Amino acid sequence: MVLKSFFEPSSVAVVGASREPGKLGHEVLRNIVEAGFKGKLYPVNPKADEVLGLKCYPSIKDIPGQVELAVIIVPARFVSSVVADCGAKGVKATIVISGGFGEVGPAGVELERQLVEAAKNANLRVLGPNCQGINNTLVGLCASWPLVRCKGPISVISQSGTVLAAIACWAEEEGVGVNKLVALGNKCDVDETELLEYLAADEGTKVIALYIEGVRDGRKFLEVARPAAEKKPILVLKGGRTAKGAEAVVSHTRSLAGKDAVFDAVFKQAGIHRAMSVEELYDACKGFAHLPLPKGKNIAIVTSSGGSGILATDACEEFGLNVIKLPADVREGLKEKLPPECILRNPLDLTGSATSQMYDEALTALDGSKEVDSVIVIVGDPMPGVSEVIAKHLSRGKTIIPVMLGGGKVEVDERVKLQKLHVPIYPSPLRAACVLSALTRHAQS
Amino acid sequence: MVLKSFFEPSSVAVVGASREPGKLGHEVLRNIVEAGFKGKLYPVNPKADEVLGLKCYPSIKDIPGQVELAVIIVPARFVSSVVADCGAKGVKATIVISGGFGEVGPAGVELERQLVEAAKNANLRVLGPNCQGINNTLVGLCASWPLVRCKGPISVISQSGTVLAAIACWAEEEGVGVNKLVALGNKCDVDETELLEYLAADEGTKVIALYIEGVRDGRKFLEVARPAAEKKPILVLKGGRTAKGAEAVVSHTRSLAGKDAVFDAVFKQAGIHRAMSVEELYDACKGFAHLPLPKGKNIAIVTSSGGSGILATDACEEFGLNVIKLPADVREGLKEKLPPECILRNPLDLTGSATSQMYDEALTALDGSKEVDSVIVIVGDPMPGVSEVIAKHLSRGKTIIPVMLGGGKVEVDERVKLQKLHVPIYPSPLRAACVLSALTRHAQS
Repeated sequence: MVLKSFFEPSSVAVVGASREPGKLGHEVLRNIVEAGFKGKLYPVNPKADEVLGLKCYPSIKDIPGQVELAVIIVPARFVSSVVADCGAKGVKATIVISGGFGEVGPAGVELERQLVEAAKNANLRVLGPNCQGINNTLVGLCASWPLVRCKGPISVISQSGTVLAAIACWAEEEGVGVNKLVALGNKCDVDETELLEYLAADEGTKVIALYIEGVRDGRKFLEVARPAAEKKPILVLKGGRTAKGAEAVVSHTRSLAGKDAVFDAVFKQAGIHRAMSVEELYDACKGFAHLPLPKGKNIAIVTSSGGSGILATDACEEFGLNVIKLPADVREGLKEKLPPECILRNPLDLTGSATSQMYDEALTALDGSKEVDSVIVIVGDPMPGVSEVIAKHLSRGKTIIPVMLGGGKVEVDERVKLQKLHVPIYPSPLRAACVLSALTRHAQS
Repeated sequence: MVLKSFFEPSSVAVVGASREPGKLGHEVLRNIVEAGFKGKLYPVNPKADEVLGLKCYPSIKDIPGQVELAVIIVPARFVSSVVADCGAKGVKATIVISGGFGEVGPAGVELERQLVEAAKNANLRVLGPNCQGINNTLVGLCASWPLVRCKGPISVISQSGTVLAAIACWAEEEGVGVNKLVALGNKCDVDETELLEYLAADEGTKVIALYIEGVRDGRKFLEVARPAAEKKPILVLKGGRTAKGAEAVVSHTRSLAGKDAVFDAVFKQAGIHRAMSVEELYDACKGFAHLPLPKGKNIAIVTSSGGSGILATDACEEFGLNVIKLPADVREGLKEKLPPECILRNPLDLTGSATSQMYDEALTALDGSKEVDSVIVIVGDPMPGVSEVIAKHLSRGKTIIPVMLGGGKVEVDERVKLQKLHVPIYPSPLRAACVLSALTRHAQS
């Protein structure tokens, strides 16, 4: 597939590589180096002999070997001629990070037109311009910023570099990891639909998150998205929901934001889940990437914190989930296993005297119940050993959403242990209920 | 005032102090020691000579000096007699951390009745039972867990120990700090209303957050809350909004959750701001504690990230804020100061080539505009030096809500600098818009 050259090139040139830290031409080259890219890597800069210890070439045409992908970070007015050079060199794909095109008004529109024409003549594909690049963590190709290396199953296509970077940074911080990140920029050539098709077929990608402000061709998008969503979960955040947001979209990427209700209908028809904020998009990615899907909408809540259990109940109810009556056999079984202060209802309140062993007993009983489809496990106190208990029960296949808050240093230690196992943890009852609602709707669709 | 003995005791006994790490009787004593409490501190345990290097007494009556506050962590059945001993010793206030009272059913209800009677006979006040204690960071009295020492202007009254602890942990992590934390537990004596009155008059407390599941006396609450809310912002999260949540409340703290619409009306009448989640409560605390109030609802958004600016616009609009047209004089002034790729609208998009200097120019222009009441400043890229710029403009009195995301390691450094100055930072456009909406409503009420 032609897009493969963007994600798995055997050789990369960085045109506009700079010796000056802080400049994008420096940061992008360094990120590719530090991410451990194993292919050939050629900085291009007529004013430097070497950058970051790599031999530097005056022009892409001077590079001795083949170049599959060129990352271009030179002023907008030079981009077309660089693209023409790329064509002469046999480059297959170019990522134009440079801004100053359609997004800045008439002069930029003309430069973008010239870029499209140059790319056509050169018979190569363009991502961008005005984009934050690509990161394929699997091959260490961080042709973007900031540097993110943690591998995982989440891929992101985004019309905003920052939304892309935010999800990547959070995923790295929490050990969740990312697979392939693509910033769309002005979409002069490669667009969201083509990338969606590519990632739907991509083996490493288990979940696809989209941030978009519009789509180029709604019919085509729907044609591609529907079968893609049958293969793997697709989550979308759309900028420009409100009238003023839609106005801002025109300035940002010249997309027509269109009527929000139309997008809503398209997403529903395609089987795409809609998130309403960056954090909701990220939370859902984590959940879809690393948690089993629930078989139905019956929820049990286990907690050491009565208050948090109540807040989770409120949130689940508001999301249309079903906080069931604790099944009689679970209740009877636990009567003998748990101390008398525990409240054997749903939420199942292990109280402030909870221990990891008590969580284990509670989860064992709930694992065995066919009436319970998923469990929100709230750890609201320092609870040494609880991560092992959660990991053990998750491995048995029931959907378990771990929530940790208020546990101080012990909590930090337990989090780290779960993060090493790629188990997602949520910081509040609301965020757990929200992701569980998305998982449940997906399982039932 | 009688509650002062809970918060600023000259001497404290920990009854049930344990030598065993992990036990509450050990953790609470250690937290008081490690928080740096300067008053007299006496562990009480008949089976130990010393705990954590402190001489231990067999009973509170054996302590040589006076004891103002007793923290009680012994099994429920012994608590009444300890309280009687406290009375004999002249103790003024007791915090009963032990559970096993009203919350566990009829036998516990009887023990709680005995506790109330013992306290009455002993002429002392009781916080709890079944509570997570008190933390007054100003005097290092962390008679609670986990250990939280970071001082700040936020005080919290909570019917959930975990909600209390979560806010405290987040506030410590972000350098926001807390002042006085109180867990209500079963409220057999001291209740939310009395504490609200105390904290309203408390000098160190600038913002009060409440987590409640019900109020003991609605009329009294309203009488106290209204004047309190005129003195300082009060924020509330109420557990048991939904029918099933309200059922869980009965099991948790035997409060009658009551009709949610009634609470809503009471909060409105009292001038209390309602949050719908723990994170919203915390975010609002941060904002009210450390940001100036906006003079009106006209918002400007400055961003390096077009997409994040659009998401902020959507969120502001949905919260009823007014994302105004960029004032003509601001626009004209900035035309000369900013590079041509910047989009001189609202959101004011400095684009991916933004620098701290450009943020400085933008904020200088907006500072000077009377049409702009507040500014959401989104830093969506690595931006060295931006923290100094934000701090400088905040000090000039305009409401500035900083948002940072997607900036990798540079962002972490900039965050730390702002956190040292107690400047709150929000992780997403939505959370910033939400807190700005609360600040704006408060300023207009």
